[in-house]
Amino acid sequence: VLSQADNELLCRVGPETPMGALFRRFWLPALMPSELPEADCPPVRMRLLGEDLVAFRDTTGAVGVVAENCPHRGASLFFGRNEEVGLRCVYHGWKFDTSGTCVDMPNEPPESNFKPKVRVTAYRTAEWGGLIWVYMGPGELEPELPRLDWCLVSDTHRQLGKWISHSNFAQGLEGNIDSSHVSFLHRDFGDGGARGLMNQDGAPQLTVKETDFGFVYGARRNGPDGQFYWRLTPFMLPSFTLVPNPSWPRTGHCVIPVDDEHSIWFSVTYSLDEPIPQSIRDDYAAGLRGQPRLKPGTFEPIATAANDYLIDRQIQKDKNFTGIINVREQDMAIVETMGPILNRTIEHVGTADLAIIAYRRLLLRLARSLQDGRELYAPYHGDIFRVRTLDVVDAEPQLGTLMEAHKDKFLSLV
Amino acid sequence: VLSQADNELLCRVGPETPMGALFRRFWLPALMPSELPEADCPPVRMRLLGEDLVAFRDTTGAVGVVAENCPHRGASLFFGRNEEVGLRCVYHGWKFDTSGTCVDMPNEPPESNFKPKVRVTAYRTAEWGGLIWVYMGPGELEPELPRLDWCLVSDTHRQLGKWISHSNFAQGLEGNIDSSHVSFLHRDFGDGGARGLMNQDGAPQLTVKETDFGFVYGARRNGPDGQFYWRLTPFMLPSFTLVPNPSWPRTGHCVIPVDDEHSIWFSVTYSLDEPIPQSIRDDYAAGLRGQPRLKPGTFEPIATAANDYLIDRQIQKDKNFTGIINVREQDMAIVETMGPILNRTIEHVGTADLAIIAYRRLLLRLARSLQDGRELYAPYHGDIFRVRTLDVVDAEPQLGTLMEAHKDKFLSLV
Amino acid sequence: VLSQADNELLCRVGPETPMGALFRRFWLPALMPSELPEADCPPVRMRLLGEDLVAFRDTTGAVGVVAENCPHRGASLFFGRNEEVGLRCVYHGWKFDTSGTCVDMPNEPPESNFKPKVRVTAYRTAEWGGLIWVYMGPGELEPELPRLDWCLVSDTHRQLGKWISHSNFAQGLEGNIDSSHVSFLHRDFGDGGARGLMNQDGAPQLTVKETDFGFVYGARRNGPDGQFYWRLTPFMLPSFTLVPNPSWPRTGHCVIPVDDEHSIWFSVTYSLDEPIPQSIRDDYAAGLRGQPRLKPGTFEPIATAANDYLIDRQIQKDKNFTGIINVREQDMAIVETMGPILNRTIEHVGTADLAIIAYRRLLLRLARSLQDGRELYAPYHGDIFRVRTLDVVDAEPQLGTLMEAHKDKFLSLV
Repeated sequence: VLSQADNELLCRVGPETPMGALFRRFWLPALMPSELPEADCPPVRMRLLGEDLVAFRDTTGAVGVVAENCPHRGASLFFGRNEEVGLRCVYHGWKFDTSGTCVDMPNEPPESNFKPKVRVTAYRTAEWGGLIWVYMGPGELEPELPRLDWCLVSDTHRQLGKWISHSNFAQGLEGNIDSSHVSFLHRDFGDGGARGLMNQDGAPQLTVKETDFGFVYGARRNGPDGQFYWRLTPFMLPSFTLVPNPSWPRTGHCVIPVDDEHSIWFSVTYSLDEPIPQSIRDDYAAGLRGQPRLKPGTFEPIATAANDYLIDRQIQKDKNFTGIINVREQDMAIVETMGPILNRTIEHVGTADLAIIAYRRLLLRLARSLQDGRELYAPYHGDIFRVRTLDVVDAEPQLGTLMEAHKDKFLSLV
Repeated sequence: VLSQADNELLCRVGPETPMGALFRRFWLPALMPSELPEADCPPVRMRLLGEDLVAFRDTTGAVGVVAENCPHRGASLFFGRNEEVGLRCVYHGWKFDTSGTCVDMPNEPPESNFKPKVRVTAYRTAEWGGLIWVYMGPGELEPELPRLDWCLVSDTHRQLGKWISHSNFAQGLEGNIDSSHVSFLHRDFGDGGARGLMNQDGAPQLTVKETDFGFVYGARRNGPDGQFYWRLTPFMLPSFTLVPNPSWPRTGHCVIPVDDEHSIWFSVTYSLDEPIPQSIRDDYAAGLRGQPRLKPGTFEPIATAANDYLIDRQIQKDKNFTGIINVREQDMAIVETMGPILNRTIEHVGTADLAIIAYRRLLLRLARSLQDGRELYAPYHGDIFRVRTLDVVDAEPQLGTLMEAHKDKFLSLV
Repeated sequence: VLSQADNELLCRVGPETPMGALFRRFWLPALMPSELPEADCPPVRMRLLGEDLVAFRDTTGAVGVVAENCPHRGASLFFGRNEEVGLRCVYHGWKFDTSGTCVDMPNEPPESNFKPKVRVTAYRTAEWGGLIWVYMGPGELEPELPRLDWCLVSDTHRQLGKWISHSNFAQGLEGNIDSSHVSFLHRDFGDGGARGLMNQDGAPQLTVKETDFGFVYGARRNGPDGQFYWRLTPFMLPSFTLVPNPSWPRTGHCVIPVDDEHSIWFSVTYSLDEPIPQSIRDDYAAGLRGQPRLKPGTFEPIATAANDYLIDRQIQKDKNFTGIINVREQDMAIVETMGPILNRTIEHVGTADLAIIAYRRLLLRLARSLQDGRELYAPYHGDIFRVRTLDVVDAEPQLGTLMEAHKDKFLSLV
């Protein structure tokens, strides 16, 4: 449970909010490169941290992200002409480059000397790890790009998914650090193997260890032969997680706030050593893996609250726990029907929710400390994000000792 | 007219409101049994008095009504598994029985001893009079089921209808105690018989007599041979009415608050002495009688504000007063286009509105008195609801004397 | 830029607002006569200055405009029976004439003497200039009808268009007094002729001259042979403008507030000397000229924010500045995507926006002065609206002198 004040502090990310300030200290992935496929292609609208923006790729291939409304009289730059190294408002022809500089103002006489006085709000962008990232914070505090494991492999070794969730980012993120729900929400009755290990013990014991990138938590289940089945999940600020998969390939997630009541979800499937096969890419495209089924030409899921996420009660009886067929659609059904912003004042969190509690404490503490003028450490140390997961059967009962013992596989890169 | 403050007091029924408290002293019909057709069938969502709820029929056939959001982390129990005498949240497998007790908590280790500390809000239910009823008040104040006339006949002698209105309950109820509108809103130009009597005198004189179940009002019209055409309508707390039909069978209504801006309407057609014929049941199903035409698989009317209730201006010229073909659709057109909550500060109520005025006074007085700590009488005396209507041509000009004279037919059961 | 307080003052037009009071001093066009084609035809809903209204044409052909909700119990008079010189509420049969007098109250006994105490709010109407106008102000301050140029020609010489915009009236009006946008927003790459003159100099110099009807502004562009290309645009209170077209026929616009976030746009094409040809009327009907393409049977444009105004990015590259094919749809794309009420606190207005600045100052000053009890001049002098535009190539550099020199063509009627 949180107080109502803390819940507001955790969830609100608009321009003047403490948590919004925290997110504005980090590079945030926002677009698939395919949304801006070539130089001078049509601009796209986007909304991040409660701000309406337009992204465009200029004649040189550089990506600009600017406030949607033209600083002149508020016309939408989405309708702008993307031409000759700048985005030109169609209302009066004012033109801005990716830095936000007004490079042409054809409806003013030159002697008015008005052009140098006008800028459009523009944010720094980067193409990194197969995505387009945006930095929305103060210029002098520009962070390093996070050297996340999946950002460092080549495109051939990585498949990305993206979709929009109609819910606050925090309840989404909390689902990604909630080991015990996997044994229920995502259970298929035919499961075997390592997922089988999860299902054999639905009540993992959690331990959380804070780190400079965020924290790691270990979910310890009783395993075969008196050993433990350990799954170690890193949470990396401000909203990245990796899944301790029992089998190849590796996967991760990220939940980026669109505004207080919507978020962008990215999923990534990647490999350190071999290309992602076409079959996995096809499954992504079909919404069979990694992301929900999407309405064509959009990032909006087909399964929504309005259609009860296409639940099939017969399938719920016979085949899986929910009657919803896609793992991500199962997530969306839970995360979205909590309401746009989960009311955390009426929760009952238990020992299985230890990582969620740690997550809230960490974000609230950092947001408050930032308000008090103490800058964060993580944004300026991109290397600390080079973290991996662990999924192992081991006799060791303590998280710290286990992390030490498997240093070569886990956290080996830092 | 009401002051704005009184209008708020009359119409708001959420958890912390005085009128909400009044409704929470009574059993309220909410579901058709066909919505929960068998043991362990899919749960259904519902909203009552501003609270989001989920209803389910457990393995034993008992009906549970619980808060929609799981007390753990707020996932919707609508997606729950209804299995082995309880509803199990699909997020982490927590399971609740119809009393709200948590009977399984598989993601917590037994030693955490967390399970006994958690309950889901659950309300008492009853199957009565062909409907599923819910009691949402304090456990120690559980009322008796109202022994309404139509609740006491067998299913064969009763046909029920249900639909959703996009308007506050009070303006709906006021339509059900508004004798004079029948002569206008529901007039068919081909009418004869008793309806003809109504149409011959559109300005009935009303008298209201308060009772322990609510009140009775008599609408006296001038009838043939210097006599009076009397129609006596009982209003039974908190929102039941019977229609003084001139001909077989008997009918009644009930308007239950979904929230401040929506309500469930029930209509009932019943007989004391013989089964309801299949033709009437077919007419209900087709929306030709007793209820509006409904969108298949829902309780949402087909005729809505968005389509102007399918008004046909030629029919309005030639065939009936409104150009809307179904009596209930006529009601909805009026009740819903008053706005979600009728602004009673700008009304002009006349002598024809005496029953409406009495209704408001009674509800406001009882809601205030409940706030002052004086409990109601009616909820704890189910027998006082055994009331009937009267529709008679009689020379008697006074309501009290008329009621006394027809005691055997009217109020005969109390 | 405006302060937030001034922006509110400029844009809010509801019953209790200063700008609403200003608009309530003028006759406002509201309906096409075709919306009420004959005596006793079906009533139509409308909303003006934030008030829900119903218009009807009675048996004598007179147009009534009354508050939508019946003064009795709030039923919508849209469903009313329009019969025998009055509109009759279908709930209880109360009937009102175009003056708002209750002429029948059949559900009340005559002795209640209630009928003379009840009126429905009714507004004065007039048919004028091919439109139905409404006056919503105090009866004793009823203004003269404005003798606008296009109101004085016969129907054969005039074509009117009407559509709904989902935006505040003021940002719409501002587009109509914004000379420089024509060179950009409405540019077709194939343009020649006078439009070509505009495109040759996209940075006109503006001068504003206040008048008793509002103001005139001149946009001076550099023209051929060292002369100036002058376009003079009159703004007539409260929201009329004429376009200084280089060629026959003449055109004008009007933006009427529906409520704070919607407005009715009227366009007029007219001629002083010859009938409007059928080809222009056909183009209006098809949405190729004068108005956007409309959803059949409505005044709602087909091109909306939801479909990005049907922008075609290839057309934007090759054929015109926006990729939106219709001049009015171009306007709507800009005006509506500013948001329902443009945030004027973050604008950067330049010398090209002089007329817009003058417009805001004038309206704010008049609204404030009306609040201080000083009545307006314009509403009571219909003849001052007999104004024309000027579109001329001339060596004169000063607006005042130019206006004097072309007195015979411009303002010749006052």
